[in-house]
Amino acid sequence: MQVRGTLVRGGTSKCWLFTERDVPGTRTDLEAMLVAAYNAADRRQIDGVGGATSTTSKAAVVGPSRAPDVDIDYLFAQVGIGEGRVEWGSNCGNCATAIALYAVAKGLVPADPRETRVRLRNVNTGSRLDAVVSTPGGRISDHPNALVPGTDAAGVGVRLIFLAPGGGSTGALLPTGRPAEPITIAGRRARLSLLDAGAPVALLRAGDLGLTGDEDPAELAPWLPELIAVRAQAAIRMGLARPGEPAPQAVPKVGIVGEPRGDRIGVRMVSMQEFHPAIGLTSAVALATATRTPGSVLAGAAAPEGPARLRLATPSGEVAVRSSLTADGAVAEVELERAARLIADAVIYLPAAA
Amino acid sequence: MQVRGTLVRGGTSKCWLFTERDVPGTRTDLEAMLVAAYNAADRRQIDGVGGATSTTSKAAVVGPSRAPDVDIDYLFAQVGIGEGRVEWGSNCGNCATAIALYAVAKGLVPADPRETRVRLRNVNTGSRLDAVVSTPGGRISDHPNALVPGTDAAGVGVRLIFLAPGGGSTGALLPTGRPAEPITIAGRRARLSLLDAGAPVALLRAGDLGLTGDEDPAELAPWLPELIAVRAQAAIRMGLARPGEPAPQAVPKVGIVGEPRGDRIGVRMVSMQEFHPAIGLTSAVALATATRTPGSVLAGAAAPEGPARLRLATPSGEVAVRSSLTADGAVAEVELERAARLIADAVIYLPAAA
Repeated sequence: MQVRGTLVRGGTSKCWLFTERDVPGTRTDLEAMLVAAYNAADRRQIDGVGGATSTTSKAAVVGPSRAPDVDIDYLFAQVGIGEGRVEWGSNCGNCATAIALYAVAKGLVPADPRETRVRLRNVNTGSRLDAVVSTPGGRISDHPNALVPGTDAAGVGVRLIFLAPGGGSTGALLPTGRPAEPITIAGRRARLSLLDAGAPVALLRAGDLGLTGDEDPAELAPWLPELIAVRAQAAIRMGLARPGEPAPQAVPKVGIVGEPRGDRIGVRMVSMQEFHPAIGLTSAVALATATRTPGSVLAGAAAPEGPARLRLATPSGEVAVRSSLTADGAVAEVELERAARLIADAVIYLPAAA
Repeated sequence: MQVRGTLVRGGTSKCWLFTERDVPGTRTDLEAMLVAAYNAADRRQIDGVGGATSTTSKAAVVGPSRAPDVDIDYLFAQVGIGEGRVEWGSNCGNCATAIALYAVAKGLVPADPRETRVRLRNVNTGSRLDAVVSTPGGRISDHPNALVPGTDAAGVGVRLIFLAPGGGSTGALLPTGRPAEPITIAGRRARLSLLDAGAPVALLRAGDLGLTGDEDPAELAPWLPELIAVRAQAAIRMGLARPGEPAPQAVPKVGIVGEPRGDRIGVRMVSMQEFHPAIGLTSAVALATATRTPGSVLAGAAAPEGPARLRLATPSGEVAVRSSLTADGAVAEVELERAARLIADAVIYLPAAA
């Protein structure tokens, strides 16, 4: 058995993209296909197309949208690493940029003369995003030159805009009703902000842990088990998991944020079972939203009105995020500059069913 | 610019295979192509098709052989990880099994009714290997069931046979002229066997170090710097490096071998800067040869004549190796049971030249 797929880099992630008509129609069969194609059960994914890291074990199924005023629907899959399963509960901004480029490159959306707006819907969470792909002269450049922190590789410029990001996964920006709440971590009392914007996140203030948020991830290794335990607790508090169930690895994103200095905030996020080399874009959206949420661990880092710019200082460099508000103070849009590149078109051979 | 490639698992490695006619003819241009296709300069290889580990950053160029009595020539490339270059000095047994399967699957070698012998030449080292691919009914099974230690994934059975492996890299089975020689390691006097068969190796007897050869690699971590220092010394003794030059990381392979118990030998090898999760096939060839070399640290582990079977007990399980001798007592053949599987056929898009 075989399936066509396209490997696309979006920002600092690699995603295999599949068109809806090429893959099984049920979620169960689709999951079985992805688990087989990636050799997800192996922590090295040695018999499959995955890269065996959280940023290289991603996939999405892409097709024309069923919703009005939307061009493309996509279903995002975080494929297991050493676990023969897929997590369906999240979205991935880097993959969204890859999907927008793919949609234009494959003719699913016609290219406009200067740039092409692709209206995306993430069907996992219902989130709406717009991605504006650079298409000078009505085509994708063979010599693109857009860059993102975390890689020296050039790609096609894609501006990614999260629309009304609050409450996408849980229905509420503050699923527990509180912008911050107490938690005990390694014997220390800390403040925890549980927000759902872009992705559900659990944010800890670095200072509460005796940290700065600018540490080398290797230095933070002793904190990893504690942060994974916080994620498990936060998942229950946010209604993303039930007590007694296995803790999800993909949601919420958990991270440590430093003291804001002007528009700069040091941030160290955990992705699956390790520190993220940079930051997931959906987490960046949540951080931008947290700066505009009174009472959160990042409250006051951005001005209370008007558009604002934030520099998120990650281990791989700074990620710039812009946010704007609605008249009633909710976050209307969060925008990031990204780059994407098609790496390969493939026919993937699936191993025979066990 | 684009290039066709096929991703194949061989044993516990993944290799991208290219046909000679699809790739640049000069080594310089070929290296530039591989560096671009893999995004080798990035330690995460995020903008390319590589897997960013030593066992998933491999490639080979495959074509009909120019030598008599050989079917397939292949040029093996160990593609850099975080370094924009390729190491051309070595061979890879796992990739050889992948190449044999590919040669049959792509019709470069016609399939025989039961199994198909593919006569291979590694053009990097001049080594000759035969690979016998399982082809029941004259075809490659869609439901193959061969397994190797280190992965649960099934593949097509491939018997890999190294022919007259002695002296492939240095011209002599015993480059120093001695089957064992003294060395001081961590203040202990130990015996060191320096052999060149399959790959150049430096073998220490576990008992000389107060070890068994069956330790968990994590337990052996304190020995790693000592073993890396032994490798640097051994490289000079074997003529693989000159004093004062940077020590090579890929050669010789260095390892600790336990007391043979029947045909079972515990073995812990170092690969680049860490313990190998199992054992490289070329190292397995060297161990088999050592058991048949009078005076080596493994002398006597196999009968002095006739074919012999050995079970190499690695951290990932046992690797079985068979060896046979010529009339004058040299090692004629070393054979290993492997498995391989085609993962994907692709068109790879190369980034525009910098």
